[in-house]
Amino acid sequence: MAMKTDIEIARAANKLPIQEIGAKLNIPSEHLLPFGHDKAKVSSDFIKAQADKPNGHLVLVTAINPTPAGEGKTTTTVGLGDALNLIGKKAAVCIREASLGPCFGMKGGAAGGGNAQIVPMEEMNLHFTGDFHAITSAHNLLSAMIDNHIYWGNKLEIDTRRVTWRRVMDMNDRALRQITASLGGVANGFPREAGFDITVASEVMAILCLATDLKDLERRLGAIIVAYRRDRSPIYARDLKADGAMTVLLAQAMQPNLVQTLENNPAFVHGGPFANIAHGCNSVIATQTALKLADYVVTEAGFGADLGAEKFLDIKCRKAGLAPEAVVIVATVRAMKMNGGVAKSDLGPENVEAVKKGCPNLGRHIQNIKKFGVPAVVAINHFVSDTDAEIAAVQDYVKTMGAEAIVCRHWADGGAGAEALAKKVVEIVESGAAQYAPLYPDEMPLFTKIETIAKEIYHADEVLADKKIRNQLQEWEKAGYGHLPICMAKTQYSFTTDPNRRGAPTGHSVPVREVRLAAGAGFVVVICGEIMTMPGLPSVPAAETIRFNDAGEIEGLS
Amino acid sequence: MAMKTDIEIARAANKLPIQEIGAKLNIPSEHLLPFGHDKAKVSSDFIKAQADKPNGHLVLVTAINPTPAGEGKTTTTVGLGDALNLIGKKAAVCIREASLGPCFGMKGGAAGGGNAQIVPMEEMNLHFTGDFHAITSAHNLLSAMIDNHIYWGNKLEIDTRRVTWRRVMDMNDRALRQITASLGGVANGFPREAGFDITVASEVMAILCLATDLKDLERRLGAIIVAYRRDRSPIYARDLKADGAMTVLLAQAMQPNLVQTLENNPAFVHGGPFANIAHGCNSVIATQTALKLADYVVTEAGFGADLGAEKFLDIKCRKAGLAPEAVVIVATVRAMKMNGGVAKSDLGPENVEAVKKGCPNLGRHIQNIKKFGVPAVVAINHFVSDTDAEIAAVQDYVKTMGAEAIVCRHWADGGAGAEALAKKVVEIVESGAAQYAPLYPDEMPLFTKIETIAKEIYHADEVLADKKIRNQLQEWEKAGYGHLPICMAKTQYSFTTDPNRRGAPTGHSVPVREVRLAAGAGFVVVICGEIMTMPGLPSVPAAETIRFNDAGEIEGLS
Repeated sequence: MAMKTDIEIARAANKLPIQEIGAKLNIPSEHLLPFGHDKAKVSSDFIKAQADKPNGHLVLVTAINPTPAGEGKTTTTVGLGDALNLIGKKAAVCIREASLGPCFGMKGGAAGGGNAQIVPMEEMNLHFTGDFHAITSAHNLLSAMIDNHIYWGNKLEIDTRRVTWRRVMDMNDRALRQITASLGGVANGFPREAGFDITVASEVMAILCLATDLKDLERRLGAIIVAYRRDRSPIYARDLKADGAMTVLLAQAMQPNLVQTLENNPAFVHGGPFANIAHGCNSVIATQTALKLADYVVTEAGFGADLGAEKFLDIKCRKAGLAPEAVVIVATVRAMKMNGGVAKSDLGPENVEAVKKGCPNLGRHIQNIKKFGVPAVVAINHFVSDTDAEIAAVQDYVKTMGAEAIVCRHWADGGAGAEALAKKVVEIVESGAAQYAPLYPDEMPLFTKIETIAKEIYHADEVLADKKIRNQLQEWEKAGYGHLPICMAKTQYSFTTDPNRRGAPTGHSVPVREVRLAAGAGFVVVICGEIMTMPGLPSVPAAETIRFNDAGEIEGLS
Repeated sequence: MAMKTDIEIARAANKLPIQEIGAKLNIPSEHLLPFGHDKAKVSSDFIKAQADKPNGHLVLVTAINPTPAGEGKTTTTVGLGDALNLIGKKAAVCIREASLGPCFGMKGGAAGGGNAQIVPMEEMNLHFTGDFHAITSAHNLLSAMIDNHIYWGNKLEIDTRRVTWRRVMDMNDRALRQITASLGGVANGFPREAGFDITVASEVMAILCLATDLKDLERRLGAIIVAYRRDRSPIYARDLKADGAMTVLLAQAMQPNLVQTLENNPAFVHGGPFANIAHGCNSVIATQTALKLADYVVTEAGFGADLGAEKFLDIKCRKAGLAPEAVVIVATVRAMKMNGGVAKSDLGPENVEAVKKGCPNLGRHIQNIKKFGVPAVVAINHFVSDTDAEIAAVQDYVKTMGAEAIVCRHWADGGAGAEALAKKVVEIVESGAAQYAPLYPDEMPLFTKIETIAKEIYHADEVLADKKIRNQLQEWEKAGYGHLPICMAKTQYSFTTDPNRRGAPTGHSVPVREVRLAAGAGFVVVICGEIMTMPGLPSVPAAETIRFNDAGEIEGLS
């Protein structure tokens, strides 16, 4: 029997009408705003009415540093959600929405894989419910209002050299990274340098994902710094009176999307901020809504635990008052081998020594998670090529770290393959062992916060930052932004800022290249290394092979 | 009693669930893809299954040359649709979708007005069902693939100075009209001049509105000319292999949107191409679907009859094989007065002489419509300030032109106010008098087609075009594009190319500034005068006042 591809499995899914999925969470159908028969938004009125209900239990799925071998974080999130339902818990999963643009570059963007997927996969990779388009519109309305303000006399005295607010497009388009705009004469404005980022990198995206309701959304949008005057004083979006219209544009997008897993369990798929210059988690409002409606909520964070889990715990949970009760760290035997120095092409044969050599990367993530007061369990996402000896090596190692590693076969078997993990997660949650606390207090100076993350999480010796950057941080502290958390932007492939240093390196420095204030989202972005906010397409883009075949099915999407 | 605003009336609408509206047209609810509870797309499978059914009767609503006094073309379209239903006909209306960008510039974009509106008005002015966002994405994917192709070696030998395909955004943003892109060094490509149009000006929009199914859509998208080589040979979208992915992006948008009038009658709102550089009509697929499902279909065309009706009849009907059986020309007493030389500020007092003086504008439109073989009736869209003598003056004049002018009060009274018009339309249709034929045959040379429109419709003496333009037209004829219809782009305010020449001028010339080939949409655009394809925002954009009020209602949108 030929192995089915992810998209074949997704297409063959026996989907229930979305109203039936909503009913599992006691959402009446009049409060589900349908998008087709298999997607819906949960109405904000209904969400408001749940405010006084107790929260379910929050479980975070994170991973070791990613390798080309793939870890399967989303797949494990979905599998664990299905498994919790199988063992009788009312569980929902919360993941991010896919970005449209990149899916025309490289193949991909599936929501999970194998028998642990969220459907409808094709729509989720295309326009879905239009949230990202709304974010693009709101972002670019603000951009247009800036240049329009300058055009009509510039009463606010915007320094056109210091406009920090760019434009966005949900597309991989390197030609737009750096442009000169307003060319062509008097009627088109004052020429200036400008540029585009991809929509997921927009501060509006981060804001939508952190806002708790429309009022909070509007306040945050108004607090966005769009430019500076010659005297360096900031100009806010509210100075341009853009916040009201941006909120109106985003109101529908603020309502979380409900879809389903292959096993017909509820999944919230909402928001998708970049995991480097933003915090890389699904929306607060989706997570909070899920917690009101389900007993267990399984969610994930972008990249490896050094970036994703740290930001989830230090930004999202801190700001939204969420308290996770268990953390699942996903690892694979293959990725352990790669961390142990094996090339991707040599992953086939058994290599217990390499597995052992790679395990310290996993070990450090286990240690790190403990620093937030939340118990961790390791999920070994099983591949058919894994040998018993290799799996045992990981399990033995994890035991020495005071944790447990559980083999999960959700990719092959769906929820049934993750039952052992689900039982362990329930055991941890019910033990009441979790005592979540962020890594650093709000009142710590900004630079000390950066040092804390670098030393405690990256295990670096020092943070390198020139005087200009330190002064900038101090200026922000004086301006009242000192209480903000830090959003680190560095490579996802290593604990260090060098993507090639695998394993669990020590003795390294963290050089800070640039700091940015996301005053609306509410964090300080600390950029260590090259960060690309507008990707390009590859030499043969996936778009060239995406099309409808004669059967009317979409080809090439995944 | 205070007069209710359009938005207050729209909000108070007693909407039926969209499934009940679909049921009126015998659309089973599984073939309605809902967007919320009051909007839906009609599935392409269902549309395909209707192919062999007979067509209902098609009625076009057009107007005199627009004046600042307003004519109420959409309002009359909606009122007539409701009235036809009132007198026992199964009728549907077909109008265009509103563009998002402009609604942040000036107030407006309502679908009808008073008691003749289509709802939900707010969603229709915001993202609606996402069609325009899909068009933006598809257009910009092609743009990105062009620069990406150049970046990776430019095998097709695109002359970077001759890239005709721009980018689009659904926003009024003059700063993007003219830019230089790909700045910033090797990694960002080869710097070149570029620019953005507003989404409704995209050829993709025109294509979506003319395509009959997904196959036809893909073929047309592939036929778009995106650039030229140094030897002037064209490069097509299909050469870049962009057509398949663009089709996938547009598949959902191709399905027509069903909403309802205030009187709960079905309305298809689908597509919205510019009425100057494109043909300005709602989609062929929506009109054809409505014709299969309703006995009467009332639709409208952009601007006045000299542009809108001419393009509807010479482009849309010719290409889609549609045969309208009656044309309604909307006029108002106020607009007649303005055509008669009265300033907007002096429209209040009775002025029968001015009405009489303005009537020849209306008269010429009546004459013109007859040239297409379709009987015309005039709808006087009634305003409370109209006097009996003024109305009688219009009616008497119209009688001398061999037609009838019927007073319509749908703005105040809904469908009941347009019953007389509806009865007249039915009488015309049932008489079988219509013998639609386009103004010129396919095989006529392109320049002669332009002359035919200028002389027959604009009543001009001549067309002025320099040798370069005439040569260009001949080159296109040699390349096999000679059979295409002409899409005239000129001012909507006059039969001439001078917006200030009201009434029914003669003796003028039509100077052609530029010609463009829309090879995918399938027409040759002839530009006479300044045509703006990317609007700007005014000094105080409407966006500044758009916001949610404390009652959670959107303020400032209309």
